[in-house]
Amino acid sequence: MLIHETQLRVQYYETDQMGVVHHSNYIRYFEIGRTELMRHIGLSYKDVEDLGTAMPITGVEVRYFFPAHYDELITVKSFIKETPKARMVFHYEIYNEQRKLLADGSTTLAFLNKETGRPQRPPEMMMTVLARWFQSV
Amino acid sequence: MLIHETQLRVQYYETDQMGVVHHSNYIRYFEIGRTELMRHIGLSYKDVEDLGTAMPITGVEVRYFFPAHYDELITVKSFIKETPKARMVFHYEIYNEQRKLLADGSTTLAFLNKETGRPQRPPEMMMTVLARWFQSV
Amino acid sequence: MLIHETQLRVQYYETDQMGVVHHSNYIRYFEIGRTELMRHIGLSYKDVEDLGTAMPITGVEVRYFFPAHYDELITVKSFIKETPKARMVFHYEIYNEQRKLLADGSTTLAFLNKETGRPQRPPEMMMTVLARWFQSV
Amino acid sequence: MLIHETQLRVQYYETDQMGVVHHSNYIRYFEIGRTELMRHIGLSYKDVEDLGTAMPITGVEVRYFFPAHYDELITVKSFIKETPKARMVFHYEIYNEQRKLLADGSTTLAFLNKETGRPQRPPEMMMTVLARWFQSV
Repeated sequence: MLIHETQLRVQYYETDQMGVVHHSNYIRYFEIGRTELMRHIGLSYKDVEDLGTAMPITGVEVRYFFPAHYDELITVKSFIKETPKARMVFHYEIYNEQRKLLADGSTTLAFLNKETGRPQRPPEMMMTVLARWFQSV
Repeated sequence: MLIHETQLRVQYYETDQMGVVHHSNYIRYFEIGRTELMRHIGLSYKDVEDLGTAMPITGVEVRYFFPAHYDELITVKSFIKETPKARMVFHYEIYNEQRKLLADGSTTLAFLNKETGRPQRPPEMMMTVLARWFQSV
Repeated sequence: MLIHETQLRVQYYETDQMGVVHHSNYIRYFEIGRTELMRHIGLSYKDVEDLGTAMPITGVEVRYFFPAHYDELITVKSFIKETPKARMVFHYEIYNEQRKLLADGSTTLAFLNKETGRPQRPPEMMMTVLARWFQSV
Repeated sequence: MLIHETQLRVQYYETDQMGVVHHSNYIRYFEIGRTELMRHIGLSYKDVEDLGTAMPITGVEVRYFFPAHYDELITVKSFIKETPKARMVFHYEIYNEQRKLLADGSTTLAFLNKETGRPQRPPEMMMTVLARWFQSV
C-alpha cells in the first residue's frame, strides 16, 4: 500500500456561512492529495496527461465527521491500495492539527486516450513505476 | 417519493482543462437541486436556518457516467425517498439536453441546533410539511 | 449601448464565513452576465470559441458597495458601450431584489486565434452582429 | 513598504477549458498572498476576526499579462505600501517559475465591527504592529 501525506492551509474562500469549509471543497482537497502522492512516487499527473492519457473521475465518496475551519493546517493522507486495472482507486483521510479525523473517502479514475477519448489500459510507464513501489513496500 | 427537477446552465468557470465540467462541481449542482426541491415543497433551506437548524452534510456519493460540457443546459432531478429521522437523504440524477444520464448520487444531511451546535431531531415544521407531501403522493 | 439583464440565485457554496457572498464570486457573476448578453444578441460565446477565437480576460475591476446574501435573487446588468477594436470591454452592475446596487465593475477581453494562440482582430461575424445592434439602438 | 512572497501550486480544479487558470482564481491567489503577508508580520487575519473586526473587500483590480498553467509553482508577491486609515490597500504581483510577471493587481479592504456591522477604525493592535514594521523598514 502506498501512502503519502500532504498539508494544506484552509482558505477563507473555502468556508461558507455555516462558518466551516463547504463540503464540496473536500473533493478538491482529495485532488491535491492525489496529485502530491503521484508526484511523490514519480508519476506526476501532468506528465501522464502530457504523455496522452487523461484520467477522468468516475466515482467519489466522502464521509464527513467533523468540520475543517478557516486557517487550519490540515493533512490529506492519500492511499493507493492496489495496482490499477481498468480503474484506479485512491483513498483519503483528512486530519486537523490535533490529528482528529475530519473526513475520509475515495475517488475512482478511468484511463482515456486523450486523442480518441476512448478507454485505454493504464500507461505502461505508470504500471512500471507502481510495480516498483509495491515491491519495495 | 418527492421528485423535483431544476435546470441550470453550465458555466465556463466550472470547466477544467479536460474540456468538461470539473467533477467537484456536481456536488454543487446537487446543492442547487436540493435547494430547489426544498423551496418547491415549501421548506426553503434559508427558512430552516433562520428558524435555528443547520443541516451539515455527513456524506456524499457521486457516480459519473458522461461529462457535462460548457454552455449545456442540464437538469438536476432530486428525490426524497423517505421522511428523515436522525438523517435526511437526497438522491440526484443529472441529465443533459438529450436526456442522457450524466451522473447520479446522493447526499446525507444531519440536523444541528445552530445555537448549541448539537444534533437535534428534524424541525417539527419540516416533519409536518413532509408528512403532507408524502400523504398526497 | 447594448444592455442585458440576467437573474441568478445566490448559492450556499458562494457564501463565506462572513455570512455573505465571497468577493471572488462577483467575477463569476460578471461572466454569467456577459455570456447571457452575448447569447441575447446572437453571439453565443460558445459559438465564438467553436469558430476558432478565444477571448481571454486581460483586466477586471470590481467595486463592492453592499454584500449579496444566500438565496437572494440578484440581477446582473451587463453593458457593451462601444464596438471592440483590439479589446472588448463589458461593464456590469449587480442589484439585489430591492434594486439596491451591490457592486459594479468591468472586464476587458482580448481576441486570440485558438490555433496559433496569437492576438487577432474581432471575428468578422461578431463585428457584423454588433454593428447591426448598435445601429438599431 | 512591507513585502512578502508566498508560493502555491496551481490546481487542476482552477483551470478552465482554455487550458489555463480561470481569471477568477487570481482573486483567490491574492487572498492567499494577503493572508500570508499578514501572518508573516504577526497580524493573522484569523486573529483580527477573532478580536471582533471583519475586513470586507471594497474593491479589486487585476491586470492579466500571461496565463498560469496547471501544476506550475507560482509566487504571489504582496505589498502594503502605507498604513491604513479608513481603508487598507494590498498590492500583488504573480510570477511563474521563470519569474515572468503573469498578473498584478490590488484589493482594498474596509474595517467593520463584527457585532454592529458598522465601519470602524483599524484595530489598535494592527496599527501598533504596522507602525513597528514601517519604522524598521
